[in-house]
Amino acid sequence: MTAEPPATPLLNRVTAELVGTAALVAVVVGSGIQATELSRDVGLQLLANSLATVFGLGVLILLLGPVSGAHFNPVVTLAEWWNGRKDPHGLTLREAAAYIPAQIAGAIGGAVLADAMFGRALVEWSTHDRSAGHLLLGEIVATAGLVLLIFGLAKTGQLRFAPAAVASYIGAAYWFTSSTSFANPAVTIGRAFTDTFAGIAPASVPGFIGVQLVGGALGLALVALIFDQRRRTAGTR
Amino acid sequence: MTAEPPATPLLNRVTAELVGTAALVAVVVGSGIQATELSRDVGLQLLANSLATVFGLGVLILLLGPVSGAHFNPVVTLAEWWNGRKDPHGLTLREAAAYIPAQIAGAIGGAVLADAMFGRALVEWSTHDRSAGHLLLGEIVATAGLVLLIFGLAKTGQLRFAPAAVASYIGAAYWFTSSTSFANPAVTIGRAFTDTFAGIAPASVPGFIGVQLVGGALGLALVALIFDQRRRTAGTR
Amino acid sequence: MTAEPPATPLLNRVTAELVGTAALVAVVVGSGIQATELSRDVGLQLLANSLATVFGLGVLILLLGPVSGAHFNPVVTLAEWWNGRKDPHGLTLREAAAYIPAQIAGAIGGAVLADAMFGRALVEWSTHDRSAGHLLLGEIVATAGLVLLIFGLAKTGQLRFAPAAVASYIGAAYWFTSSTSFANPAVTIGRAFTDTFAGIAPASVPGFIGVQLVGGALGLALVALIFDQRRRTAGTR
Amino acid sequence: MTAEPPATPLLNRVTAELVGTAALVAVVVGSGIQATELSRDVGLQLLANSLATVFGLGVLILLLGPVSGAHFNPVVTLAEWWNGRKDPHGLTLREAAAYIPAQIAGAIGGAVLADAMFGRALVEWSTHDRSAGHLLLGEIVATAGLVLLIFGLAKTGQLRFAPAAVASYIGAAYWFTSSTSFANPAVTIGRAFTDTFAGIAPASVPGFIGVQLVGGALGLALVALIFDQRRRTAGTR
Repeated sequence: MTAEPPATPLLNRVTAELVGTAALVAVVVGSGIQATELSRDVGLQLLANSLATVFGLGVLILLLGPVSGAHFNPVVTLAEWWNGRKDPHGLTLREAAAYIPAQIAGAIGGAVLADAMFGRALVEWSTHDRSAGHLLLGEIVATAGLVLLIFGLAKTGQLRFAPAAVASYIGAAYWFTSSTSFANPAVTIGRAFTDTFAGIAPASVPGFIGVQLVGGALGLALVALIFDQRRRTAGTR
Repeated sequence: MTAEPPATPLLNRVTAELVGTAALVAVVVGSGIQATELSRDVGLQLLANSLATVFGLGVLILLLGPVSGAHFNPVVTLAEWWNGRKDPHGLTLREAAAYIPAQIAGAIGGAVLADAMFGRALVEWSTHDRSAGHLLLGEIVATAGLVLLIFGLAKTGQLRFAPAAVASYIGAAYWFTSSTSFANPAVTIGRAFTDTFAGIAPASVPGFIGVQLVGGALGLALVALIFDQRRRTAGTR
Repeated sequence: MTAEPPATPLLNRVTAELVGTAALVAVVVGSGIQATELSRDVGLQLLANSLATVFGLGVLILLLGPVSGAHFNPVVTLAEWWNGRKDPHGLTLREAAAYIPAQIAGAIGGAVLADAMFGRALVEWSTHDRSAGHLLLGEIVATAGLVLLIFGLAKTGQLRFAPAAVASYIGAAYWFTSSTSFANPAVTIGRAFTDTFAGIAPASVPGFIGVQLVGGALGLALVALIFDQRRRTAGTR
Repeated sequence: MTAEPPATPLLNRVTAELVGTAALVAVVVGSGIQATELSRDVGLQLLANSLATVFGLGVLILLLGPVSGAHFNPVVTLAEWWNGRKDPHGLTLREAAAYIPAQIAGAIGGAVLADAMFGRALVEWSTHDRSAGHLLLGEIVATAGLVLLIFGLAKTGQLRFAPAAVASYIGAAYWFTSSTSFANPAVTIGRAFTDTFAGIAPASVPGFIGVQLVGGALGLALVALIFDQRRRTAGTR
């Protein structure tokens, strides 16, 4: 998310993406399990789940941003590549192609680790159907907002605030989007591997990923609309 | 809220006000719907609603402050115009007149978007009566405090803290004011369009807007009282 | 709390102490009323009450620190005077004597305002007895910790973090002290004027104030113990 | 956690470790008691317990970091010694040997203080068995993550963020690890002395400490894996 120093070897960066995405999914899934074990109020469960994610995600972006940029998310990696494709220091397609599998592998590993920590079967396909149309609209909004935030911070020279800002955004999006804001294809895949609070049925995964990609493109369009300066007529302000 | 660079074209600034106010209302309304769907404890519902708003509002001010000043609120826009009317770099009446309709249109759009994300009727007038006198006192206090904060931060050279400070203020004001702190005529209008947790019956809207304007004026008076230096007698400290 | 610019006239500083303490008590009392009206879970009530106070107190210290130092608390004012009594720029006894009545008047006004916002009788003596010995121990700990924090931040040149740090401390102290951490004689007096969640019976007030003064002195002793450098033998490290 | 100025006498530093660890355990144990006294929802109890710890721990690291480095944790002290054993300014074994007993004594004192504040027996062995295998895995993950965070922040020159980052990490780890993240041998010992929400049966203590040491070593390995730059073949990037 923050501009990574180009001198960092790709192997370190890919390791950071793998470990970071694993940790993110372990936080999301693990806190969901803990919450459902301790309370029967679903609102309280989501509150604990969302606050744990805010705390965990902020820390992960702070810690790993200087290494890999702390994407943890194929939509962000693709948008970084797209935006920087004419920039000699931008993310190359080869680098993006190394990041994304690491993110997906990390996400699956994080779900398995969470299950293990709570004494569950390591892999159990989620039975949580998430295919309703309004949930897909929620994912479009969630992903568009995430991309708007990250690239808007870049446009305004505020990427140093990304740890707190992205974490806060997700904390809000858990609640204001109907889908509780997955907004991340790798995390979506990982969350299919656990039949717990944060799970998503495998059959619902392709739909989520499809609209996340749509949301990412919409987010980049919003960045241009808001941050690229336009004047209606020359000389007017 | 932060001083916008004068070079930003008005079209960008108005777009930022529209998108930002829409996002703010989508957060407020959407998180209210999510909370009422998941819990029956009204206290927990307001806790989720208020925390989501803290997270979302802070991010929006951070992101859009450099573009438009991140008012999202006609009372703030009017106070900015009033305070800067003799300042050649201040907000002009023409600019204020462009901001306010964008804020109102955004607020309505945000409420409709939230309803759509949760599979509700896109527009349904709220039936939540909010006309009791003590609620109106709550709105006066809420709006006065908001204006005192924003312009007090400006007076003390601390506008860079506005994202966290304004968000935190609203987080407190959700709870300590009886009205749960609308403090914003555009948001009040938007919230009339949804018959959910955060709604307000159309008949209660004029009363809220009237006392918000009173609160805004009171806030400016408090700014002068606290921050404009006065000495009781010459030479005394 | 932060060192106030000596040029600020006393009248402004006293006004800031009055308004700030009023706002603090309005937040504490008002959020307590809102919470008890919305939930029957006393834990949730205290959670809302404590989070609203964290948000509100942090904002108040940020906003008014540059004017008056944002004491809002006679124990802090007395400790400032004691610590600075040999410093030509320190708080004078005359200034302390102007701060403290303003804090008390503000605290009472804040409680009355909160009652008014929620449609309650403006003044109703609290019937909440808080005289048990372990509660008094809680107040000693709470006040000692507050003084240790503020003057420890000063000793380590970190007073710029006071808004977030003091607010966070109070957020913790609501929960880890048995008294829910009043830690402030002015606020204690103000909270006697409302028979709601945050109230304290007038008969319990003198005991609380007495141990708060003890806690304040203990806090200053801890500051010396931890931050004043001592060596067991010359030249040894 | 932050690099302590070498000029600070050891006696001050040890005092800071003792007082800081006592305060940390008082926060953890005290907030657990308060939460169980006020609510019957175990999820809400852990939410209050975890938020109070986030607030309290962040403040303690900020306040005492400049004095002792704010370890409050034998695993952190040992890792600091190990990492700095070839550094002339690193923590010496003699200093580590002074820190650790102070941390343990402080932790016990903090538990006793919390019990006293809530009118409980000052010492009562906990009856809370925590010996299940998946809890031990949770402790490994919790401690590895803590060490990865602290030393990763050091590697990336971001130790100034340690107060907020470490506190946030613990806030997440309360929820995403099955053990609620003790991650600290001294605190584990202290929590055996109280038969309340945050307690741990003495028979479970050795197992927890053992895996915490394993987790600490794993954390240092992760630091090397992620932050030490490796290149697969010379000249390749």
